[in-house]
Amino acid sequence: MNKKLNFSDWLLFDGAMGTMLQNHGIKFGELPESYNILYPELIEKIHKEYIDAGCDIITTNTFGANSYKLKNYSYSVKEIITSAVRLARKAAKDRFVALDIGPIGQLMQPYGTLTFQEAYDIFAEQVKIGFTEGADVILIETMSDIYEAKAAILAAKENSPLPVFCTMTLQNDGRTLTGTDPLTMVTVLQGLGVDALGINCSLGPKEIIPQLNDILLYSKVPIMVQPNAGLPEIKDSTTIYNVTPYEFASDIKSIAELGATILGGCCGTTPEFISEVRKALDSIRPVSRHVKKITAAASGVKTEIIGEGITIIGERINPTGKKKIKDALKSGNINYLALEAIQQKDAGANIIDINAGIPEIDEEEMMVKITKEIQSLIQLPLQIDSMQPKVIEAAVRIYNGKPIINSVNGKKESMDAIFPIAKKYGALVIGLTLDEKGIPFKAEDRLDVAKKIVDCGESYGIAREDIIIDTLALTASAQQDAVKETIKAIGLIKEELGVKTTLGVSNVSYGLPRRELLNSTFLAMALTAGLDAPIIDPLDEGIKNTISSFNVLWSYDVKAEAYIKSLNDKPTPSWNLDNNIEKSL
Amino acid sequence: MNKKLNFSDWLLFDGAMGTMLQNHGIKFGELPESYNILYPELIEKIHKEYIDAGCDIITTNTFGANSYKLKNYSYSVKEIITSAVRLARKAAKDRFVALDIGPIGQLMQPYGTLTFQEAYDIFAEQVKIGFTEGADVILIETMSDIYEAKAAILAAKENSPLPVFCTMTLQNDGRTLTGTDPLTMVTVLQGLGVDALGINCSLGPKEIIPQLNDILLYSKVPIMVQPNAGLPEIKDSTTIYNVTPYEFASDIKSIAELGATILGGCCGTTPEFISEVRKALDSIRPVSRHVKKITAAASGVKTEIIGEGITIIGERINPTGKKKIKDALKSGNINYLALEAIQQKDAGANIIDINAGIPEIDEEEMMVKITKEIQSLIQLPLQIDSMQPKVIEAAVRIYNGKPIINSVNGKKESMDAIFPIAKKYGALVIGLTLDEKGIPFKAEDRLDVAKKIVDCGESYGIAREDIIIDTLALTASAQQDAVKETIKAIGLIKEELGVKTTLGVSNVSYGLPRRELLNSTFLAMALTAGLDAPIIDPLDEGIKNTISSFNVLWSYDVKAEAYIKSLNDKPTPSWNLDNNIEKSL
Ligand SMILES: [Zn+2]
Ligand SMILES: [Zn+2]
Ligand SMILES: [Zn+2]
Repeated sequence: MNKKLNFSDWLLFDGAMGTMLQNHGIKFGELPESYNILYPELIEKIHKEYIDAGCDIITTNTFGANSYKLKNYSYSVKEIITSAVRLARKAAKDRFVALDIGPIGQLMQPYGTLTFQEAYDIFAEQVKIGFTEGADVILIETMSDIYEAKAAILAAKENSPLPVFCTMTLQNDGRTLTGTDPLTMVTVLQGLGVDALGINCSLGPKEIIPQLNDILLYSKVPIMVQPNAGLPEIKDSTTIYNVTPYEFASDIKSIAELGATILGGCCGTTPEFISEVRKALDSIRPVSRHVKKITAAASGVKTEIIGEGITIIGERINPTGKKKIKDALKSGNINYLALEAIQQKDAGANIIDINAGIPEIDEEEMMVKITKEIQSLIQLPLQIDSMQPKVIEAAVRIYNGKPIINSVNGKKESMDAIFPIAKKYGALVIGLTLDEKGIPFKAEDRLDVAKKIVDCGESYGIAREDIIIDTLALTASAQQDAVKETIKAIGLIKEELGVKTTLGVSNVSYGLPRRELLNSTFLAMALTAGLDAPIIDPLDEGIKNTISSFNVLWSYDVKAEAYIKSLNDKPTPSWNLDNNIEKSL
Repeated sequence: MNKKLNFSDWLLFDGAMGTMLQNHGIKFGELPESYNILYPELIEKIHKEYIDAGCDIITTNTFGANSYKLKNYSYSVKEIITSAVRLARKAAKDRFVALDIGPIGQLMQPYGTLTFQEAYDIFAEQVKIGFTEGADVILIETMSDIYEAKAAILAAKENSPLPVFCTMTLQNDGRTLTGTDPLTMVTVLQGLGVDALGINCSLGPKEIIPQLNDILLYSKVPIMVQPNAGLPEIKDSTTIYNVTPYEFASDIKSIAELGATILGGCCGTTPEFISEVRKALDSIRPVSRHVKKITAAASGVKTEIIGEGITIIGERINPTGKKKIKDALKSGNINYLALEAIQQKDAGANIIDINAGIPEIDEEEMMVKITKEIQSLIQLPLQIDSMQPKVIEAAVRIYNGKPIINSVNGKKESMDAIFPIAKKYGALVIGLTLDEKGIPFKAEDRLDVAKKIVDCGESYGIAREDIIIDTLALTASAQQDAVKETIKAIGLIKEELGVKTTLGVSNVSYGLPRRELLNSTFLAMALTAGLDAPIIDPLDEGIKNTISSFNVLWSYDVKAEAYIKSLNDKPTPSWNLDNNIEKSL
C-alpha cells in the first residue's frame, strides 16, 4: 500500500472476525487464527464482504496470534501472521490492512507472571512479521491493561515505522479491568505516541458514548471507536447481540458527530453493520473537536492534572542530606523507601519523587526496583529524579503510566540527552532554568532559559504542556537577592510561556535557623506567584499548614471542608454561608 | 502689591534685621520690634539698604511680635505689626514684603505649657494684622518645633490668602531642637500646603549644604535657604560671624546650583552680603530638581516611608470584638490604650492605628485625647481611624506630623467629606475599594473603584502618592471566591495606578478555626502580591514569623540579621556568605 492514511476524513474499519467465523460454524475450542491456514478462502471471503460493505481498512485475523497463546498449538506465530496478512492484503486491494494485536492472555507483573520485557518481546515478534508482510497499521485492541498496551506500543514503534492505533476495553464501571480510567488512557497512550486511540468491545455503542467524554475532551490524536453490537446476552448458551445494523449505524453516527473519526464494529457486528455505518458516515463530515491541553502525569490508574489546585510532589525519597535514605539505598532496603512513599501519600502528596543517586550503588538497577515496588504499592504518579539519562530511561521505560522526568536543564548536552527520552516514553519533564552560564540572577534571564528549553523541547516534538519549569530556589543565606527573582520568574514564565511551574522549596532556607518558618513562608509566596507543583516534604507541619490554608484562601478547598476536617476541629458556630455574608465586612 | 511671585526665577530675600540693629547700637534687653515705633526711619533705612542691595523681598521687623513675647511690654501686637508692615511696604515699592513670624518663645505641650489652640490663636492674630496691612507673604521662620510650625501654618492659611513660607532651624545633629529631621520637615510642611520650605539660621552656608540632601530630594515646593554668616563665635562677649560677603555669596551660589531658589541671609548678614548674593545669582539660572515622590506618614520626629520594606500598621487599638479595649474606652483608661501602643511599637509596628469608635462615649474627645497621649509616649506616626469625618478632623488637626486617615471610600459622600480634611492637614488617606454599589467581587472592578478614588482625590488637590488603597479582605468563610480577588487587586492596582496598598489582614479568617494559620498565610500571599502596609496585630506570633521570614526572602532583612537576632539563635556554622554560594545548588 502506498496510499497514506487520511486522518481528516472518516476511517471506517471492518466489523467482527470472530462473529463471522461463528456464523460459519467455528466451534468452541477451535483456534480462530488457524483458519488463516486451514480455510484461507473463508477468511479472504469475510475480508471481501467487509470491503464490499464499504470499509476503508480491514483487520487481519491475528487477534490471539502471539507466542503465549500459541504455545500449545502446532502453528507458529510466523505462520499464522504471515498467512493472515497475505490474505488480508490480497482482499484489501487499494484499502488498508491493519495488523490486529490483542492482549497476550496473561496478566503482567505484579498481578500476573509476565515481565514487561517478556510482553514486549511477544508483541515485537508479531509486529516484525506483520510489517514484513505488508500491514499498513498496527492495531493494538481490546486492551485491559495499560501497562501491557505500553509494551505493545513500544514494540510496535521500535520494530516498525507503521502507524499505531490502540483501543482499550472498559468494564461497566468505566475503567479497564486493571483500573485505567479514560483520562489516564488518553494521557498515557498519546504520551507513547499512538496515532489513534479509543475504546472497543465490551459495550454497545449507546453505553460507550458517556465513556467517551474525557477522550473527546483531551485526546490530541484521532479517536477510534469500535463498539460491540450492543450488550451481549446469553441465549441457549450462545452469546447474542440485540442491536440491529441500522440502530448501530445511527449510534455510530452520534459518536462521529461528537468527534470520533475512526469507526468500526467489534463483537456481533457483520458486513451489514458496516454497510449501514458507511451510509451513515457518508451523510456527514468529521467535526473538529476543541482539545483541552493539560499538563498531566499518570500512573496506570490515576491522572494528576497539574495546574488545577496545588500538586504536591513529595521530596522525601532523596538521599541528599538524609542518612536514613542513604542507608536504605546502600543496603537495598526497599521496604523503607516504600514506606516513605506511603507516608507521603497519606500526608497528601499527589506525586512522589524518587531519587536513588548515591555513588555506592548501581543507581539504574535500584531506580528500576524502587519504581516497580512503589508502583505496586501506591497509585500515585511518580517522578523519576536522576542526574543520569540512562537511569532515567531505564525507569521511565518500565514505568506504568506517564511519569515526570526530573530533570532537563538549558544546557545543550542535557536537552539532547533528555528530550528524546521524554518524547519516546511520553513523560512530563521538569526544565531547570539554568544553562551553560549557570543560574541567571534575574527573573527575565531565567525566562530566557525557560524559553530555550520549551523551544528545544518543541523541536524534539514535545508539547509545551509536557514541560514544567523549575525557577530554582537559591539559598537565602548565600544569594539572598536571588530569592525574589525565583518568585518573580514563576509569574513571568507562566505568563510568557504558558507552562506550569514547579519548585524545590526547602533549598531556600539552607544554612539558616528555623528553616520550617522560611520554607512555609516561601511556599506561600511561590503559590501566590502561581507555583503549580511544589516539591516539598508533605509531612512537614509548617508546609502542611501553608498548603491547607492557601487552599482555603485560593478557593481550592471549597467551603474550607478539608481545612476544617484536617484540623480535626469543629467550625465555629458562626460558620454558615448565608450568615457570614452579612457579617463579612 | 499686585505683582505675583515668580517661583521659576530666583527669589532673593534680605539679610538680618537684628544684626543691622546691633550695628546701629541696639542694646541687650531692648525689644527689636519696638524700633518700628521708636525709630521708624532706621527700620525703613535698613529695608531700603536691602532693597538697594538687590533683594526681591524684604522681611518685616516682626520676628518676636506675638502676644506671648509682648505680654510684659507696653506695645500691642497690633501696634507693632501695623507699623512694621507699613514701614516695609513703604520701603519695598515694587518689591515684596514678607510678614516675619518667629517662634512664640514658649514650648508647646507636652514639652512646654502652650496648647495647640493657644499657639494657633497667637499666630492667627499676627497673620490677620499683617494681611490687613498689606504683606505679600507670610514667612514663618527659625522654627524649632514642627508642631508649632503647624499651628502657625494653619493660622496663616485660615486667616489669609497669602503664600506661606516656612523655614526651620537645625542643631548640629541635623535635627531641630524638638527632633525633627529634614525628611520629616519636608513631609509635614508640604503636607500642610506651604508654598516654600527650607532651613534658616543656626548654621553657615557650608554647614547647611549636607542638611539639604533630603529637602532637595523630596520637596515638591520651592526650597528656601537663609544661612547665618557662618558659625557664630563669641569674641569679647559679642557674637561675631567670620564668613565674608563674597564667601557667603559663593556658598549660596552652590546651594542655588543644587536646586534651592529662594535665598537670603540670616544672623550676621548685611546688605553687603545680599549684594554679593545678587551678583552671584545673576550669573546663573535656577536648576530643575528631580523630586522623588514618596508615600510617607510622619510623627513630629520620624517619617515612615511606605513602600520601602513592609510598613506594619498595628491594629490593636480598636474596640471591634475586643472587650478590654471597649472597657478602656468606656472608662477613659487612656493608660491601657497607651500601653497597647507601646507594646505594638516594641513588637515592630511602624504605625499605630487608633480607633475609638464605640457609641457610649464622645468619640471626638476621646480620639483627641488618645492621639495626644500616644504622641507624647511614642514617636511612631499614627493612623486616625473613624467612621466620622468630624472625629477625623479633630484628631488630624491637633496631630503633630502627617497622619494617615483611615478611611475614605468610593462613595461620593465619603470622598466629599474626607478629601478636604486630608488635603487641608496634609494627611495620607486610605481609600477602601467599595462604593455605593458595595464591594466589587472582581479585582478589575475594585481597580475601577480605586481609580475613582485616586481621580477624585486629585481633583481635591491630593497627590496620588498620598492615597493608599485598601483592596479589602473579605471573609473566606462567607465569600471564599472573593479572597483571591483581594490578592489580585493588590498587584493590579499597584501596577495600574502606581499607588501603595494596605490591607486589614485578619478579617479574612473570621468564622474559621485556627485563624492565625489563615492570617499568616494570607499575609504572605498579600505581601507577595505587593502589599505595602499590612494592618495587623504585631504581637501575633504567626504574623511576626511571616513578616520576619518574608523580610529575609524579599531581601528587606539583609543577611537575615534581624531574623537571626529575633530568633535569639545563632546562625548555623554554615552561615557564611562565601561558603554558601558554593553550596547553594
Ligand atoms: Zn468485541
Ligand atoms: Zn539667624
Ligand atoms: Zn534670621
